[in-house]
Amino acid sequence: MITAKARAVFSPEGPFKPTTIERRDLEAHDVLIEIKYAGICHSDIHTARAEWGPVNYPLVPGHEIAGIVTQVGPEVTKYAVGDRVGVGCMVDSCRECHHCHQGEEQYCLGGMTGTYGAVDRYGQYTQGGYSTHIVVTEDFVVRIPDGMELDAAAPLLCAGITTYSPLRHWGAAPGKKVAVVGLGGLGHMAVKLAHAMGAEVTVLSQSLKKKEDGLRLGADHYYATSDPETFQKLAGSFDLIVNTVSAKIDISAYLSLLALDGTLVNVGAPSDPLSVNVFSLIMHRRSFAGSMIGGIRETQEMLDFCAEHRITPEIEVISASRIDEAWERVLASDVRYRFVIDISTMGNE
Amino acid sequence: MITAKARAVFSPEGPFKPTTIERRDLEAHDVLIEIKYAGICHSDIHTARAEWGPVNYPLVPGHEIAGIVTQVGPEVTKYAVGDRVGVGCMVDSCRECHHCHQGEEQYCLGGMTGTYGAVDRYGQYTQGGYSTHIVVTEDFVVRIPDGMELDAAAPLLCAGITTYSPLRHWGAAPGKKVAVVGLGGLGHMAVKLAHAMGAEVTVLSQSLKKKEDGLRLGADHYYATSDPETFQKLAGSFDLIVNTVSAKIDISAYLSLLALDGTLVNVGAPSDPLSVNVFSLIMHRRSFAGSMIGGIRETQEMLDFCAEHRITPEIEVISASRIDEAWERVLASDVRYRFVIDISTMGNE
Repeated sequence: MITAKARAVFSPEGPFKPTTIERRDLEAHDVLIEIKYAGICHSDIHTARAEWGPVNYPLVPGHEIAGIVTQVGPEVTKYAVGDRVGVGCMVDSCRECHHCHQGEEQYCLGGMTGTYGAVDRYGQYTQGGYSTHIVVTEDFVVRIPDGMELDAAAPLLCAGITTYSPLRHWGAAPGKKVAVVGLGGLGHMAVKLAHAMGAEVTVLSQSLKKKEDGLRLGADHYYATSDPETFQKLAGSFDLIVNTVSAKIDISAYLSLLALDGTLVNVGAPSDPLSVNVFSLIMHRRSFAGSMIGGIRETQEMLDFCAEHRITPEIEVISASRIDEAWERVLASDVRYRFVIDISTMGNE
Repeated sequence: MITAKARAVFSPEGPFKPTTIERRDLEAHDVLIEIKYAGICHSDIHTARAEWGPVNYPLVPGHEIAGIVTQVGPEVTKYAVGDRVGVGCMVDSCRECHHCHQGEEQYCLGGMTGTYGAVDRYGQYTQGGYSTHIVVTEDFVVRIPDGMELDAAAPLLCAGITTYSPLRHWGAAPGKKVAVVGLGGLGHMAVKLAHAMGAEVTVLSQSLKKKEDGLRLGADHYYATSDPETFQKLAGSFDLIVNTVSAKIDISAYLSLLALDGTLVNVGAPSDPLSVNVFSLIMHRRSFAGSMIGGIRETQEMLDFCAEHRITPEIEVISASRIDEAWERVLASDVRYRFVIDISTMGNE
């Protein structure tokens, strides 16, 4: 077994404490990654606080992982020691079902193996990226393109792919009008990506507080959803709306902003059901859809797209001792736009 | 003005009474149609009973109209006296907006003109097909193919196109699994059409009462939704589900029956909003959509498709004196599968 330093929560209330965890010895196709940076995702908080289901504590969160390969199993062909690599929300799947064969491992019919809080094929409880090392089968590792900084790469592994995948799937492109609901970790990536894909991008945010930011990130328009006129003015406007807000919103009001054949896609899920006025769907053959991260092949495609278009998230790098504080700031929407933990600080304490 | 005999309701409570209504004199592009048959659609009842909004009584319902052209305006080019024609849910639209230009007049941005209960471009209140004659601009008239009986053609103008359009739009075809929720007027057409398009068709009905019928109409499988095992057994099965039930159902349970990238499309709208569990959308990138009738070009395409595949609805022809009774039977789901009024009986009373 390989021992790694980590930061874990031991109960829903936290706080984080230094600990050590075991990583499995390398199987034939495994790579050992020395983690350099790990992004903080809102879903880390939901999971750790047992809001999405029961948790087996201690839990080490983190599924936006960037690091360096330091060892490879005997049959690894894709990576070598020294390679700059990333790991996202999944570390495995059944690899045998129809969806896995299609490269949509996130929708694995047997259930993909989450990077933390899941039980893997070895019967071990998975632990995430708030840690110095991780062992992952090479098929679930992606390559971080040359020239892309590791700290900025980390959030692409969840926030990047979660927004890239639906933008591609529903055809964000020149001539298309795309709206992004919420300008947080996911939203700000959606704006950058949709803009790079050539779409006309509108941010729909509660207030105009981040308007300058939004326009700088690539948005063409910015509206406050607290202003009822916004919904009148933009009725029937958009080909695609990406809703990055997990809180309960008046989804029917947002559906009314879609043009003929438009789709509103949720990338987060509120814990309570949403109330949908079916007339708003029928009137312009609209769709209300959902999307979850993306497959491994598409994650690599997203990283390469970001490198080509020089897209990186806006990040604030913190030391491992400040995770609790960062989580509170995430909950208060006080982050522009993603916290990234500098894992090298984990050894100092 | 042209005087037509009709059956109208004078209040939400009904009943139908014989009356006469005025049809406009023919404009340059108008055709006068002697109505032979008119189908009874559930939405006639919703509208007449003011369940979908206030109504200007007296109201003559009916938007499944089949008849013969008996007079044409001086600039009519598409139809001649003696032609067998149909009129569906719309008699006009703005004809200038983007959607009208696309041939999607049902989604006219100015609002299409309903065949009854609407105000047309002449400022007149439209009255529908429970009547001996109607005047309609030729662009909103379709041709009933040779060899198709007029009585059987009538229900295609609403029930037919309402199910044909989403089946085409979402790609019902060989290799696709399509489920139809509800085996009523719309549902039985959806089964016939999806089967003719080559899809594998499953009926999801409350009970197995109509199972023999469903299989005879073209379904490959038939399940009772009152049996909870149905939802377990069919989880993740369908590429497309056409929900013809307007009543409030547990839509999230039906969404869970969709395969990856599947769509559940509502062709009716319950008056209350539906509660959607967003996780059921996100888990397999599913969509919940709506669709409303179809454009004029597509309505003609549907009629030609039905003629080619020898598809007609199952109908029960009634005399004009039995409309009230037929409505009660529609509400009690006691019709297999569409009532059609023989308009020739209207003169007898």
